[in-house]
Amino acid sequence: MDPESVAKAFVDHYYSTFDTNRAALANLYQENSMLSFEGQKYQGSQNIVAKLTSLPFQQCKHHISTTDCQLSGANGMLVFVSGNLQIPGEEHPLKFSQMFQLIPAGQGSLYVSNDIFRLNYA
Amino acid sequence: MDPESVAKAFVDHYYSTFDTNRAALANLYQENSMLSFEGQKYQGSQNIVAKLTSLPFQQCKHHISTTDCQLSGANGMLVFVSGNLQIPGEEHPLKFSQMFQLIPAGQGSLYVSNDIFRLNYA
Repeated sequence: MDPESVAKAFVDHYYSTFDTNRAALANLYQENSMLSFEGQKYQGSQNIVAKLTSLPFQQCKHHISTTDCQLSGANGMLVFVSGNLQIPGEEHPLKFSQMFQLIPAGQGSLYVSNDIFRLNYA
Repeated sequence: MDPESVAKAFVDHYYSTFDTNRAALANLYQENSMLSFEGQKYQGSQNIVAKLTSLPFQQCKHHISTTDCQLSGANGMLVFVSGNLQIPGEEHPLKFSQMFQLIPAGQGSLYVSNDIFRLNYA
């Protein structure tokens, strides 16, 4: 697949997993993975998913507005996403930007080595 | 310097150069550098700076809201920025998000290998 298709497939998979079975995101991170979430840093799949599953909402729905990707180094890929996040009880969706660095994990799969998430406040 | 200080110094330098002498940004990119600007892709310092200097405003002022950084691979760094961009004649500043991958360029300096810029539309 070309990089754009890989990026789109990753984004579809990541956010549909987030919205339906957040704990399963653990499979996308490894022990050296890093997450910066609104300025707080977490390292390792277990700590990252503990953070994501403890967010103060159980249900949510991501809508993706833009996906950009670039090759990074020999085998990696950078993916940059903007979109909005609908949370039950919130009248307006929250706008966010997020970036991922994806690294080959063998057998054609990729894992998330770097993840930085920020809400875009109005 | 610690990574946070390096990232902050880079961000200060990048946007102050952009706002005062945009053509001098050429020094921060190399031939393999990539820019995605609102979904359009450019490769190489010359093409990237040609794009940036041809934007339809001569003066601008970036205000940075957040800067996140993470180490990337052995020696690189990811920097993720949100902020707003004031352009003469525009009543409201434009909100943007931007990410950079910085790679050592020798003698303690870094260059931008990857740059992805998006405006955050309301």
